[in-house]
Amino acid sequence: MTKPTPAKVSMEKIVSLCRRRGFIFPSSEIYGGLSSCWDYGPLGVELKRNIKQAWWQAIVQERDDIVGLDSSILMHPRVWEASGHLEGFADPLAECKSCHQRWRTDELEGDSCPACGGELTEPRLFNLMFKTFMGPIEDEANVVYLRPETAQGIFVNFSNVLDTTRKKLPIGIAQIGKSFRNEITTGNFIFRSREFEQMELEFFVKPGTDEDWFNYWLEERRNWYIKLGIKKENLRLRQHMKHELAHYALDCYDIEYQFPMGWAELEGIANRADFDLSQHAKYSGKSLAYYDEDTKEQIVPYVIEPSAGIDRTFLALLCDAYDEELDKDEIRVLLHLHPKLAPIKIAILPLSRRENLAQAARGIYADLRQCWAVSYDDAQSIGRRYRRQDEIGTPFCVTVDFESLKDKQVTIRERDTMNQIRVPIKELKTTLAAKLSGEDLFVLPPGGKIWKVERE
Amino acid sequence: MTKPTPAKVSMEKIVSLCRRRGFIFPSSEIYGGLSSCWDYGPLGVELKRNIKQAWWQAIVQERDDIVGLDSSILMHPRVWEASGHLEGFADPLAECKSCHQRWRTDELEGDSCPACGGELTEPRLFNLMFKTFMGPIEDEANVVYLRPETAQGIFVNFSNVLDTTRKKLPIGIAQIGKSFRNEITTGNFIFRSREFEQMELEFFVKPGTDEDWFNYWLEERRNWYIKLGIKKENLRLRQHMKHELAHYALDCYDIEYQFPMGWAELEGIANRADFDLSQHAKYSGKSLAYYDEDTKEQIVPYVIEPSAGIDRTFLALLCDAYDEELDKDEIRVLLHLHPKLAPIKIAILPLSRRENLAQAARGIYADLRQCWAVSYDDAQSIGRRYRRQDEIGTPFCVTVDFESLKDKQVTIRERDTMNQIRVPIKELKTTLAAKLSGEDLFVLPPGGKIWKVERE
Repeated sequence: MTKPTPAKVSMEKIVSLCRRRGFIFPSSEIYGGLSSCWDYGPLGVELKRNIKQAWWQAIVQERDDIVGLDSSILMHPRVWEASGHLEGFADPLAECKSCHQRWRTDELEGDSCPACGGELTEPRLFNLMFKTFMGPIEDEANVVYLRPETAQGIFVNFSNVLDTTRKKLPIGIAQIGKSFRNEITTGNFIFRSREFEQMELEFFVKPGTDEDWFNYWLEERRNWYIKLGIKKENLRLRQHMKHELAHYALDCYDIEYQFPMGWAELEGIANRADFDLSQHAKYSGKSLAYYDEDTKEQIVPYVIEPSAGIDRTFLALLCDAYDEELDKDEIRVLLHLHPKLAPIKIAILPLSRRENLAQAARGIYADLRQCWAVSYDDAQSIGRRYRRQDEIGTPFCVTVDFESLKDKQVTIRERDTMNQIRVPIKELKTTLAAKLSGEDLFVLPPGGKIWKVERE
Repeated sequence: MTKPTPAKVSMEKIVSLCRRRGFIFPSSEIYGGLSSCWDYGPLGVELKRNIKQAWWQAIVQERDDIVGLDSSILMHPRVWEASGHLEGFADPLAECKSCHQRWRTDELEGDSCPACGGELTEPRLFNLMFKTFMGPIEDEANVVYLRPETAQGIFVNFSNVLDTTRKKLPIGIAQIGKSFRNEITTGNFIFRSREFEQMELEFFVKPGTDEDWFNYWLEERRNWYIKLGIKKENLRLRQHMKHELAHYALDCYDIEYQFPMGWAELEGIANRADFDLSQHAKYSGKSLAYYDEDTKEQIVPYVIEPSAGIDRTFLALLCDAYDEELDKDEIRVLLHLHPKLAPIKIAILPLSRRENLAQAARGIYADLRQCWAVSYDDAQSIGRRYRRQDEIGTPFCVTVDFESLKDKQVTIRERDTMNQIRVPIKELKTTLAAKLSGEDLFVLPPGGKIWKVERE
């Protein structure tokens, strides 16, 4: 028998792992799925919550100069006139005269149908905003749109936030929420979907200080991904070329990640100058100026916008954490997820189901659950159970064996190194707390013994 | 001059407080607002996050028998055929032949227009689901709906969740997310809006055990509101009458809260039997049965559904916490919010802006911010600043005065009692930690001195 060979991460492996372990299911799967919509399962919802919490903590909670907001998905239609989305947020679409498939002409290399070679119609612009009707009458007067970005909810509330918080420039407003785009070309799993979730920050500054703040946020945001555990070599900053820039944007960079399908955008960081506030002031007739107490002047702030996608961050984190190793002639799949992000922090594994052992293990389980997301697994061999936890990124397994009943100690086994240490049960909580909070995940404590767990 | 009289809570007072302090703004306010949609401002978003976290903690994190889910808002249209929403989720709507206003005829007392007395058209059923089109063609084949409830996302994923978590009955699946209803009659601020957020639990049990579980959840959910600080006398359980029950529901209760406009539903708790799983099995052709290892039979579980509204809980918490008191001939407005829910836990108030005092206060501020949501306020008199914090429910103010520079002590002032104690700065964090985590908010520590803060 030849040994299996550990392979690199691929999109197929990630999709399969997500489906198999309950990270992500296709939406409405029992009805054949809904194109490009996804449901986050029991493990996925926890990982997603942890990503959102890590962003909110870094952007809102730990800072004095940023506040949060949660604006509605349905907004007044004039918002999208002012923002330019009604006119400009569109892709050129053509239909094949033979096979009637539709194509984005800006993505085509030739001018005939990629499917059958047929002739294409003249392209027409197709707006990417989902529209619906508010109230019982389905006519133009009642059209509203599902927001294609959360950012506009921030701009229209600029004065409300300033007036109620009494904050001064520079001041950021941050928001997490769903957005919708009726994309013609979707794909790459959760990378581009029609319903997605954003983490957007609009950071308002005095004109003239915008370049410095722009550079600040480039650095800050890149570091955030690195702190979450993404490898530096899989991240790059790509400056937009002149023809990619919106006419009002002074500068823009994408933080790109090296996905299995290639480099692609995780987050865009733009210097949008005063475009958004000026447009909304013009369309609403309300002043969105700021009174600068230093210069005694009314100014329209410039804005730096770091705009991140949660689903893309989720995908990047899984791709980056995915690993295969050869262990005792078998492939060990594991996710090197940062403990802060891991859906389950600790698994309690009793070596057998015998009552006295189960009772001890259940006690530890109940105790640790007060502090962390903990799972309990007593099915199949201890080796299979380790594998199951490795595959979902659980940083620590706690094994309770027959020796534990006598010496009141248990074994902690670490995911990445498979190192094992033996600790007294009464010190378990503090030991795990230190390991889960620390940067160094598995430094042996002075005098800590390395143990091997007995197999059943 | 006559003394002002403290008044009871009213919807006007709550709306005004929310707008003034940045809890809630009308959506797209600079464009005149969007009917019945609301934006949560800097304080509102934190209160809302705290409510959601309290629910997730009680329902998912602290329990072994419930897991989370986050399904998409756009779902396959067949879902709504199976659930009955496409056919039955509708209100009867009639138009006045004279003034052309539209009315829900099930809410009218007479049969003529309440506005002008004119004759009404025959009522027709108006479906409350928002519809939109997926893809570039706006025809019937591409219609999708914004979900009117999060529950169906749970039912269609029942087998996915069971297969991937290896859990046994009873098993709950919990979800927090936005839902949309194109209501004809909206109102009472955030009580009934077209875009709202739900916290829904579907708890699947063996048929025969459903009545016990139903009673269990009634008790459990009522207690949750009480634990969050809502007064018992403002809560009641109302059993649905036979004619209110859906044809498949075995029983249903509303947890009602005594809002300023009267008793109204906070949460519905229903015994839905096997209706949902059976319908989706029928419409999808996929079995949603569960193999019972005890009886060796395939069964379709029954489901108990506690379905709560976040916006309603938010409103109830504010109404319940709102209080006016006469304090030194002035009205003191305060929110008795549970510290766990309060958007800001602690305010740091230096008695003056003088550099040495500000420096000490900023140091304390930076230190406490590592642990909690803390605000810093040095504007206007200390009395005004207390009032500002009382009004948003901040449980503790920490005052730094000139004495603090000498004796290295500060004053903690408690919101509800206005009691003040003096504590050493180096014990401040542990003192506050104990107060914020404890049930008893302001028990004086042994030997704790009661202080009065000097006025500027």
